Amino acid sequence: MTSQHAAEQHLSGKSFIGYSEVGTAKTFQHHNPATGEALRPAFAEATSDNVSQAVGLARAAFTSYRSCPPPQKAAFLSAVAAGLRADAEAIIRVADQETALGEARLKGELERTASQLELFARVVEAGDWLDARIETDGPDLRRMLVGLGPVAVFGSSNFPLAFSVAGGDTASALAAGCPVVVKGHPSHPGTSETVARVIVQAARANDLPEGVFSLLQSSKPETSLALVEHPEVAALGFTGSGRVGRILFNAASRRKEPIPAFCEMGSVNPVFILPSALNQSEALAQNLANSLTLGAGQFCTNPGITVLPEGPAGRAFTETFAAEVAALAPATMLNGGIFSAYQKGVERFTDTEGVSLFTPGPEHDEAAKRGAHAVLATDAATFLQHEWLQDEVFGPSTLLVFCQDAAERLAVAKALHGQLTATLHADEAELDAETELLSALSDKVGRLIFGGFPTGVAVNHAMQHGGPYPASTDPRFTSVGSAAILRFAKPICFQDYPDALLPPELKRGNPLDIRRLLNGEHSREAG
Amino acid sequence: MTSQHAAEQHLSGKSFIGYSEVGTAKTFQHHNPATGEALRPAFAEATSDNVSQAVGLARAAFTSYRSCPPPQKAAFLSAVAAGLRADAEAIIRVADQETALGEARLKGELERTASQLELFARVVEAGDWLDARIETDGPDLRRMLVGLGPVAVFGSSNFPLAFSVAGGDTASALAAGCPVVVKGHPSHPGTSETVARVIVQAARANDLPEGVFSLLQSSKPETSLALVEHPEVAALGFTGSGRVGRILFNAASRRKEPIPAFCEMGSVNPVFILPSALNQSEALAQNLANSLTLGAGQFCTNPGITVLPEGPAGRAFTETFAAEVAALAPATMLNGGIFSAYQKGVERFTDTEGVSLFTPGPEHDEAAKRGAHAVLATDAATFLQHEWLQDEVFGPSTLLVFCQDAAERLAVAKALHGQLTATLHADEAELDAETELLSALSDKVGRLIFGGFPTGVAVNHAMQHGGPYPASTDPRFTSVGSAAILRFAKPICFQDYPDALLPPELKRGNPLDIRRLLNGEHSREAG
Repeated sequence: MTSQHAAEQHLSGKSFIGYSEVGTAKTFQHHNPATGEALRPAFAEATSDNVSQAVGLARAAFTSYRSCPPPQKAAFLSAVAAGLRADAEAIIRVADQETALGEARLKGELERTASQLELFARVVEAGDWLDARIETDGPDLRRMLVGLGPVAVFGSSNFPLAFSVAGGDTASALAAGCPVVVKGHPSHPGTSETVARVIVQAARANDLPEGVFSLLQSSKPETSLALVEHPEVAALGFTGSGRVGRILFNAASRRKEPIPAFCEMGSVNPVFILPSALNQSEALAQNLANSLTLGAGQFCTNPGITVLPEGPAGRAFTETFAAEVAALAPATMLNGGIFSAYQKGVERFTDTEGVSLFTPGPEHDEAAKRGAHAVLATDAATFLQHEWLQDEVFGPSTLLVFCQDAAERLAVAKALHGQLTATLHADEAELDAETELLSALSDKVGRLIFGGFPTGVAVNHAMQHGGPYPASTDPRFTSVGSAAILRFAKPICFQDYPDALLPPELKRGNPLDIRRLLNGEHSREAG
Repeated sequence: MTSQHAAEQHLSGKSFIGYSEVGTAKTFQHHNPATGEALRPAFAEATSDNVSQAVGLARAAFTSYRSCPPPQKAAFLSAVAAGLRADAEAIIRVADQETALGEARLKGELERTASQLELFARVVEAGDWLDARIETDGPDLRRMLVGLGPVAVFGSSNFPLAFSVAGGDTASALAAGCPVVVKGHPSHPGTSETVARVIVQAARANDLPEGVFSLLQSSKPETSLALVEHPEVAALGFTGSGRVGRILFNAASRRKEPIPAFCEMGSVNPVFILPSALNQSEALAQNLANSLTLGAGQFCTNPGITVLPEGPAGRAFTETFAAEVAALAPATMLNGGIFSAYQKGVERFTDTEGVSLFTPGPEHDEAAKRGAHAVLATDAATFLQHEWLQDEVFGPSTLLVFCQDAAERLAVAKALHGQLTATLHADEAELDAETELLSALSDKVGRLIFGGFPTGVAVNHAMQHGGPYPASTDPRFTSVGSAAILRFAKPICFQDYPDALLPPELKRGNPLDIRRLLNGEHSREAG
């Protein structure tokens, strides 16, 4: 028996609607991207009825789930984390067949996903996220955050675990008290199923209402739209392309009752190399090459644009960098669609006057879906002339933009679209003369990195993963880190309410012992 | 010299674009709603060029304003408050001619507006709103909130001061570090001008960059749209009708770069009277009559629906309540448009089978724009049959909905659209049996009031003024109270940044002595 067969034994090929596994007549087929082999089982295509059933259950579950005690919610999230670790081997085996990301990366991603759930368990127990506020002069006012309602989560292709079924969107929505209906990504439905099984088991074990979680397996855009358009869906979280993100955002905004849509759509994460940084040009070239090619460049924080000084030092850096990149072996990309979009994206650049290619590409291994790494180069004038040179080419390519001076560098920064990150390589002293550059970049991004690389997104209280459009559809929020919970919460205020009817978070005796803003002062006192 | 002439002396009839007063060839005319008299001067109609000029200045000002020291921003906000109080007499004289709201109400509103500015001055100085978060394990991550960019604010008709030129939207946006371009409401342009003059003077006195504030006078929807569609506008705040709010929200959402739109669009603020509350029916009838007719019913928190028990006690309450309402003198409404919409709204109800009228109306005083108070009544079945009976009739009318039992009451609650508030009059003990009602209402509203009335919105840390659509376009935020600042702010995170380049809020030494979340612990320590 091959390992594929072993994994298959666990897969039903169905959706989870609440606690039930539900099949349908139509199925969709997914493939091992490295071998092209069709993977079994084929997966049942969720119907619009399935969407209604899942959302209906979620709505019913919301009423009790939102007010279930924080320790119970925290235990649920921790149980999902523990379940992922316990089933790690099976989950990773299925995920590797479906994504070709490799065991090491997937192990890391699983651990990240589990820690993320545990972070939100701690957030729920601490209660700071509730932003509880009490005023007792004048009318007695007590305000806290509560979950918005059922949240639709769209699994991503590039993070089959950390931004999918039990990823950051799901963890933060569940932490906020919102039931979740996940639309799994069709290129890794088996992974989705193995993870959903863990969540369902944890929900049952923690006596949660059926419907707190559902997984819809689907390859059809109509299913996603039906989910966003369902009147009982209260918000959505999405990680993926700008094209699809905008479609979902538009659908959310034109509903009779518009709903918040947090779509994280990636960006080109410009890296600004200032003259002084070329003094250690070899280490920089090597590290940037690693950041560029990590995970076949399939990260929303992949460095797609590198801005550097024109001149001998810049050219020397480029030679070293291109050689470093060319020396690394291309890896299989996540699926055929991503592979061919990458091919076309690189070709569009190489076909453009004023853009040259510094690596051997654009050769690609069609059978194994390996996209050749591409280091492209142009000058600031060409870059500023063609807005589309900022378009994200999802994969291991970067466009070097040569600038003659600080003024050109500033012009490039000012022309940038919204970004998740920007990175600076410079002497601290050198930046004293670049206050305008720093100011321009801080307008454009969610995260500014000094001396590092954009890939690698820590999951903690201080992370910001989001940014001005088109990096995300709402720059006021993050999809990574504990603040991600705020996307799915709204305030409610109780005025002159009897203590017995108040939620425990706001009762006069503060039975949950949480921090509250009491008449303007932070306190755990009764009041 | 009449008081009108005295006030006119101060009015230029122009827009403020930065520090310049700018006139145009076309003007619009506004009227004293009580007398129908055309008021002078006529006001210059802002052009689309004026929109670009104001937004261009705002964008330029943003770069320095966002990073100006908190004490300077706080001093600016306090100076506006002081300026309003110093010019109170002139402002109120002009406002009363334009709105007929009366000196007492306008005095109260001016004081509320000034205190609101002072609240935000304190918020800016305290720095808690920044939600500063620092993690030093792993990469050094430092995150805080910063202003989004230029904010478009749309003045309301019903609060010429507190929700207009220097109202809550402007105060919170300025506090967040965002320049503001106000589109003044065309029914009180003189009031807008007097207030704008105070803000401009305060901005100059505090050495702020020109463009931190502009006022565009306009009567044309095209001006509002041009403002929302300007690429450098980063967010909008609006208080007004559902129709206009949705138009602005749609315009904000369909931009190439969508922007956050916080539109507070009012609601019908259902008051639920449970059987026990009819034991003190006379006081309740009197207080509800006052809440209903306050300010000619022109409040977004006006109680437009009253749900009460069918039966002798309910009928007796209705007689008393209708008599109380009928005994109160109708007041002049804000403008001809609001007056005629109120007339038509009440007539649409009275023309409906199953809806009866308990007050003498629908007589109206056309000349003085006084809309007769209207107490209308229907049964739950009729209410549930016609969704439009939930439409807000802006003015002093309420629809009594008689319910036969708790089940009908619950059905009415569940059928409600999103609301700013809901109010309960009941015994605490009686509510033990109504947990479903409480849960249903908590889904529908931003604020739940026990034993009081929805009018009267305290301005402090714990207030929530917003709610699920159609009460507002984003239930995650409030337009009143200190949390309103969060509408106009976004996080930025600095990774491994040199201390010298960090904003003072995030520097390792914590020079501003603000509270920060340092590795998960709240602290004012260095770190």
